[in-house]
Amino acid sequence: MMKILVTNDDGIHAKGINALIHHLGEIAELYVAAPDRERSGTGHSITVFEPIRVKEVKVAKAKRSWVVGGTPVDCVKLAMSRLVEGVDLVVSGINHGPNLGTDVLYSGTVSAAAEGIIMGAPAIAVSLDCFEEDPDFEYAAKFTCEIIEMIKEKGIDRRTILNLNIPALKPEAIKGVRITKLGVRNYENLFEERKDPRGNTYYWLGGGIKEEQQDVDSDVLAVKEGYISITPIHLDLTDYRLLNEYKKYFTKDFLKK
Amino acid sequence: MMKILVTNDDGIHAKGINALIHHLGEIAELYVAAPDRERSGTGHSITVFEPIRVKEVKVAKAKRSWVVGGTPVDCVKLAMSRLVEGVDLVVSGINHGPNLGTDVLYSGTVSAAAEGIIMGAPAIAVSLDCFEEDPDFEYAAKFTCEIIEMIKEKGIDRRTILNLNIPALKPEAIKGVRITKLGVRNYENLFEERKDPRGNTYYWLGGGIKEEQQDVDSDVLAVKEGYISITPIHLDLTDYRLLNEYKKYFTKDFLKK
Repeated sequence: MMKILVTNDDGIHAKGINALIHHLGEIAELYVAAPDRERSGTGHSITVFEPIRVKEVKVAKAKRSWVVGGTPVDCVKLAMSRLVEGVDLVVSGINHGPNLGTDVLYSGTVSAAAEGIIMGAPAIAVSLDCFEEDPDFEYAAKFTCEIIEMIKEKGIDRRTILNLNIPALKPEAIKGVRITKLGVRNYENLFEERKDPRGNTYYWLGGGIKEEQQDVDSDVLAVKEGYISITPIHLDLTDYRLLNEYKKYFTKDFLKK
Repeated sequence: MMKILVTNDDGIHAKGINALIHHLGEIAELYVAAPDRERSGTGHSITVFEPIRVKEVKVAKAKRSWVVGGTPVDCVKLAMSRLVEGVDLVVSGINHGPNLGTDVLYSGTVSAAAEGIIMGAPAIAVSLDCFEEDPDFEYAAKFTCEIIEMIKEKGIDRRTILNLNIPALKPEAIKGVRITKLGVRNYENLFEERKDPRGNTYYWLGGGIKEEQQDVDSDVLAVKEGYISITPIHLDLTDYRLLNEYKKYFTKDFLKK
């Protein structure tokens, strides 16, 4: 049976991860290592200055589960180096809210999946495109199972994260699946300026999504139009286009100027 | 005069950023927005649940400077949306310690530069390959100025971060400059398992760098061999290789199974 490590960034008590565990538990040997509280926006951060507490807990349908006092990336790094051997797949989510376009860089959900790749296992990040308070994660969890069945059959590239974003629609209203690229995601009025009770200024990150021109195959557009978006994400950040161009600038004499 | 925004992840009091400010102040109109304390390993994290405090301070050679109670990415996002208009270039560093290979994902220094790109300005991340306590940042700061002079002359791609790693050697011992790609960077014994005074287990991130086979043009190898490494880094995480392959899997009937 496939060994799957489940994590998220909304914390172990979130509804999204529990829907995922409920369904994945039927098709895989499940291990859970999730943050003790919500850790949204933590990106690829790791805890270096503080110790990390780990507490084993019982979670129905999972073989073993741990609550981790760290970031989503800490959860995956620690679980794969100390707690579970031979993880075949990391599944991160289901996030309450989308992870689209440039926003994947800030996303604890996607970064936890990325850490799976770094630690040697392929990975899936799953997000539900919904900002409302108590969404239904059932369909998204079932769809994730279908993707995993497909991976069992056809394989998956070890260097690639599949980033799933699922519209919060009734199953029959979902139009289909699109394989997409990361689209454009910018915000306006990013920070609110406020005054504290003593009259000192502080800022709070907020901001509304800017409506922008999207390519036909953008993830943002797919979800907006009612499709499930699947983006293959890689971690090779070297800009090969520019390697040769810059090589011309740095001749042997550059340092002697 | 070029408008440069300087930030780092070691905090505003670190020696590295102050060496940078000292030298960049001679060639540019300088703005500083740096974290109030060390924020290493924060990756691309942003502060979403808490307000961010900003305090204007006087820093010699900078036109205006702010201490920010947030992550390096917060500093750049906030400065470019609220504090400084028309930033031409973001310079992040000089980090105390290298930022090479996969480690760039965890790096607050590189992530702050990445945020520059997202907010619309080209960016440079600068790190000194040194773990000793009180290194000399002078040469690294001067070299960064040379790179900026080159950028003024030849331009820089707005979507690319230049990731500089400078060996902690005497200037005359540095062998030259190599344009590199991100190399392999893995660790062994990642977490130390310890007991607290009550006998409970906790973990602490540590680990030694694994010596691994590197490509000739790897950043890790360049620095090891005494060269300054410059890697162009992009943020386009879509894995285009796999887009078409995966498209074949998801025919119109996939959802109807």
